[in-house]
Amino acid sequence: MSLSAKFRLGVLGSGAGSNMVAIAHAASAPDYPAKIALVLSDVANAGILNQAASLGLPHRHIAPGQFRTKLDDAAEAAYIHALREAQVDLVVLAGFMRVLKGQFLRAFEGRVVNVHPSLLPAFPGLDAWKQALEHGVKITGCTVHFVDQGLDTGAIIAQEGTPVLDSDTAETLHARIHEAEHRVYPAAIAALALGRVALQGRRTHLRAP
Amino acid sequence: MSLSAKFRLGVLGSGAGSNMVAIAHAASAPDYPAKIALVLSDVANAGILNQAASLGLPHRHIAPGQFRTKLDDAAEAAYIHALREAQVDLVVLAGFMRVLKGQFLRAFEGRVVNVHPSLLPAFPGLDAWKQALEHGVKITGCTVHFVDQGLDTGAIIAQEGTPVLDSDTAETLHARIHEAEHRVYPAAIAALALGRVALQGRRTHLRAP
Repeated sequence: MSLSAKFRLGVLGSGAGSNMVAIAHAASAPDYPAKIALVLSDVANAGILNQAASLGLPHRHIAPGQFRTKLDDAAEAAYIHALREAQVDLVVLAGFMRVLKGQFLRAFEGRVVNVHPSLLPAFPGLDAWKQALEHGVKITGCTVHFVDQGLDTGAIIAQEGTPVLDSDTAETLHARIHEAEHRVYPAAIAALALGRVALQGRRTHLRAP
Repeated sequence: MSLSAKFRLGVLGSGAGSNMVAIAHAASAPDYPAKIALVLSDVANAGILNQAASLGLPHRHIAPGQFRTKLDDAAEAAYIHALREAQVDLVVLAGFMRVLKGQFLRAFEGRVVNVHPSLLPAFPGLDAWKQALEHGVKITGCTVHFVDQGLDTGAIIAQEGTPVLDSDTAETLHARIHEAEHRVYPAAIAALALGRVALQGRRTHLRAP
């Protein structure tokens, strides 16, 4: 596959950017079918922007506007514009702490994915690893899913289970789930880039390569 | 451990009894710390009663009374009486299709367990494997839990994950979850029999042997 044919990713994050780094690492292999075209953050000094700079990846801070948990309309339009300008094929949420609304989801319909630190539909929402620990489950994990208008409700593309150990604290459990995310997310993105993910109702399956 | 010292199980089921058979098989090992003292069913011709008969285990049908999804008060009292008479230490639900109410749960407080065919808290209630398949999860499994007054909400003792395959039907998935149940349930019952399961809030952990 020639470089110019690679599937183009727009990665949005608010935090340290470890999933973006895992995807960039996977994408450094010549046969990986996608490349990061743009990294955007709503947080001016976010680690993900520093990481992108270190990796030589195009990156920008776009201010989120007046709200705390979503983008305002002008900001959402600015995100859409930047991603279109970068000719992004897939929007990859990687610790992006704001809900995306209808305008954004219509602009990239069926082309926005997220990774969530639990085996959805268990423990949607914030601090899913803490929710899992407090509930007392013995297995949790992570989920790559399409983003729809609900809270962590979109069709599931991939999941990996993570055992909860008797000795786990929120921190040790979160660290192990993160490791799982770093395996599952690049693999799921590759499958999407290759057009192998078929959606029927809310079940996905992998087409043969 | 002498036979007389073994932890005594009362198994309640409405169906084929495959989990009861798995427990009986585990209990046939000399070092397994529990034995089935009584098998009860609300269904006169249930497979679980025939299986108990074949295995030479004490078994009885006790009619459930006038309701469809629970035992009436007289029936619940009859179940309690039979289990007490058999000196049961732990009530093991194995495909028992009726909700147990306060009277029963108070009589055996903290000593009633169930196995559920999903990774709770995902997919409580009926046909959990079908719910999982229709939701499109990639991992489901089974959960051994204490029974409380909620629907599949009690503290979790053990779980095993089961991958959902693209080729799965409800039947093939259910069969694989059943195999997991047959591993997890006897192991969890052994841990309970040995007094190794410690409960803190709604988290359980295993004490050292």
